[in-house]
Amino acid sequence: MNMYEIIKKKRDGGELSREELAWVVQGAGRHTLPEVQLAAWLMACFLRGLSQRETVDLTLLMAESGEKLDLSPIPGRKVDKHSTGGIGDKMTLVVAPLVAAAGLPVAKLSGRALGHTGGTLDKLESIPGFRTDLPIRDFIDQVERVGVAVAGAGPELAPADKTLYALRDQTATVDNVSLIAASVLSKKLAAGADAFVLDVKVGSGAFLKRLDQAGELARTMVRTAQGAGREAVALVTDMNQPLGDAAGNAVEVAEAVAVLAGGGPQSVRDLALELGSEMLLLGGMSNSREEARLELTRLLDSGNALERFRAWVAAQGGDPRVADQPEEVLPRATWRLPVFAVQDGYVQAIDGEEIGLCLVAMGAGRTDPGAPLDPTAGVLVKAHIGDRVEAGTSAVAWVQGNDRSRLEAVLPRLSAAWTIAPKEPVVPPLIYERVV
Amino acid sequence: MNMYEIIKKKRDGGELSREELAWVVQGAGRHTLPEVQLAAWLMACFLRGLSQRETVDLTLLMAESGEKLDLSPIPGRKVDKHSTGGIGDKMTLVVAPLVAAAGLPVAKLSGRALGHTGGTLDKLESIPGFRTDLPIRDFIDQVERVGVAVAGAGPELAPADKTLYALRDQTATVDNVSLIAASVLSKKLAAGADAFVLDVKVGSGAFLKRLDQAGELARTMVRTAQGAGREAVALVTDMNQPLGDAAGNAVEVAEAVAVLAGGGPQSVRDLALELGSEMLLLGGMSNSREEARLELTRLLDSGNALERFRAWVAAQGGDPRVADQPEEVLPRATWRLPVFAVQDGYVQAIDGEEIGLCLVAMGAGRTDPGAPLDPTAGVLVKAHIGDRVEAGTSAVAWVQGNDRSRLEAVLPRLSAAWTIAPKEPVVPPLIYERVV
Repeated sequence: MNMYEIIKKKRDGGELSREELAWVVQGAGRHTLPEVQLAAWLMACFLRGLSQRETVDLTLLMAESGEKLDLSPIPGRKVDKHSTGGIGDKMTLVVAPLVAAAGLPVAKLSGRALGHTGGTLDKLESIPGFRTDLPIRDFIDQVERVGVAVAGAGPELAPADKTLYALRDQTATVDNVSLIAASVLSKKLAAGADAFVLDVKVGSGAFLKRLDQAGELARTMVRTAQGAGREAVALVTDMNQPLGDAAGNAVEVAEAVAVLAGGGPQSVRDLALELGSEMLLLGGMSNSREEARLELTRLLDSGNALERFRAWVAAQGGDPRVADQPEEVLPRATWRLPVFAVQDGYVQAIDGEEIGLCLVAMGAGRTDPGAPLDPTAGVLVKAHIGDRVEAGTSAVAWVQGNDRSRLEAVLPRLSAAWTIAPKEPVVPPLIYERVV
Repeated sequence: MNMYEIIKKKRDGGELSREELAWVVQGAGRHTLPEVQLAAWLMACFLRGLSQRETVDLTLLMAESGEKLDLSPIPGRKVDKHSTGGIGDKMTLVVAPLVAAAGLPVAKLSGRALGHTGGTLDKLESIPGFRTDLPIRDFIDQVERVGVAVAGAGPELAPADKTLYALRDQTATVDNVSLIAASVLSKKLAAGADAFVLDVKVGSGAFLKRLDQAGELARTMVRTAQGAGREAVALVTDMNQPLGDAAGNAVEVAEAVAVLAGGGPQSVRDLALELGSEMLLLGGMSNSREEARLELTRLLDSGNALERFRAWVAAQGGDPRVADQPEEVLPRATWRLPVFAVQDGYVQAIDGEEIGLCLVAMGAGRTDPGAPLDPTAGVLVKAHIGDRVEAGTSAVAWVQGNDRSRLEAVLPRLSAAWTIAPKEPVVPPLIYERVV
């Protein structure tokens, strides 16, 4: 086997055998192949595409390239949820304790903020005391005891994907559906779940802006998961505006608590019910989506979901009072400034990617792995698509954080992120497509 | 400017501006860009192609990326010759002293053997005492005094091409006509010539196997040279069998001497007259190809060309008696073994690439830069395409060298390189196409 010939074959549009893909994955995982060869191979894959069979093989091989989590000590089917990332996407914070309250065990490995989208671990760590670096034994014990645990994925899982992802990030080979599916699902497979609910975001705040692209990614991911012997469902959901009202770290925890307490923004509650229902169905906990949805609604409105959240936070060392008095427990921002509408009319569109980049500039996200965050930094959206605003008097949003100069620096960019015009716009739906 | 965006633009089929290409070339020449980004960019260029304008800009920018040779102290037009490489291609050894004898100054930088094709410097260095590492002042002085000098190109010329070529060699992005044209011509432009004669080889012993590919490369190279403000002519010439009878180092010098003395294989003599005529025309030394050819024929048959070869060898420290008694002066092989025909019939085809790889295995070429050679190692072709041979009694070739075990190891491979069949084949022409 020879990497030069493998590159050449893909360059010329050929289909790589499982053995050839294994050679690439092993070379990437063990750092035995020159990175320049991997980079050229990735560009050839990007431009020539991977077949469904190649995508499944690549996914399985990357999943096998390092350690794998064994969730078999936990009774029942383990269903994982994955989002492709967006602004204000606090769904794990809501859905994990919600479905755990329904009896579905949640053993979830999660990531940190990078690029313009946030990370679940960073959000959770804004809760004083909350630990995400759980030893594997404690992680499994906690799922058995409390029904839910969320921890950071270590470098031992799918190391080949780590090498390839770092290269894709440098070489403009990220947004290819096969490479995305293989990257996401290899980590999910290594993390041990039996089935997946995939939340594929589309719109200005997602990395996929077009519905056809998102649909293609959703189908590729579902087919790849199925090809790898797992059940999967994907929902293509809206990211043309931030999800809910809060985007940041502590602010998103507060909003998640509100939803778990039966309140909060309708969009977050609706999406939690949709994603949660899919999880219960895949987990064999419900017989129909209607039954699942009724059960989850009851858990939100009865306080049971919030109770499970409280137990979860406590189990991971966090202050459980965050479930009752989030404003008191979560770190509070020193500064809070309004973002005014720049003209009269209806909000037509909100540039989510620009909000994400402003959040990074404010300290809520990062461009370098490991950079420290300001947990209080965030954007609170006041005007969503379809809302009427007046220039100079309506705050379309508030920004908050501990560094006033950084907040002031992003105000004009944020004002410009709201497109306002006289005509009433069509409000985008929450969910575009369900792929099974 | 940002390499990620430049990769993305080419990935998506865009045309890069001169400024964007300058960013890439500068980053390659100064080693300020990550090689993984350059590798991905090269694959994107390979698969998306470069426009004529991009190719010319890339060529000029790479030519400007390092030092440039100033040939202006040498009076008259300087015409350079370049071959894309083949088996037994000793044309520089013949043509350089031949056109110098006609009054055209030859100031040529040349390369070493790498891959399956040989290198002019290695051939010349098989002449005892011959030096190719001339200081630039001595090089220019020698051209003025003797009319011809051939030296090794230092790393100072077109360093961006060196970086990119090394990457192409690893990443299966070598055989793209635009990248080849830019690589070859950037070095030629930096080496200071006013006009170029390009010998584009096609066939089993060349890196381009198909006539349409060779024609495309010839046209791209001529257009690129013209776009860079130089005159150029390309000949697409046959490499479906080794050129002449000798392939190796010392054996090719001996054959070149024979041709310069008015004898030698007809194909080598004919190609020397063709390439030399093109050089005289571009150099303004002749009014027509007929006149040029007559003059060069006279120089070969009168001994003037050989006399110029003798003076050239002496000027570079070599033993000038090589011009009169090559067998006495050149290193002699310890072993010489016949390669027998494996069946009766006519030679239909000769696998030149396989012969080149056998030459490398015998020590006449190298796979690693800097590896030592056996100057005596070589193949002497006895049966060309169209010749009749008998199994077991006709030697289709002889192999020679100082390491008997290496010669024996290649015998079966060489026997198999001659395709023999009952029907008389069509003998390929020497020259397929002339591109101006």
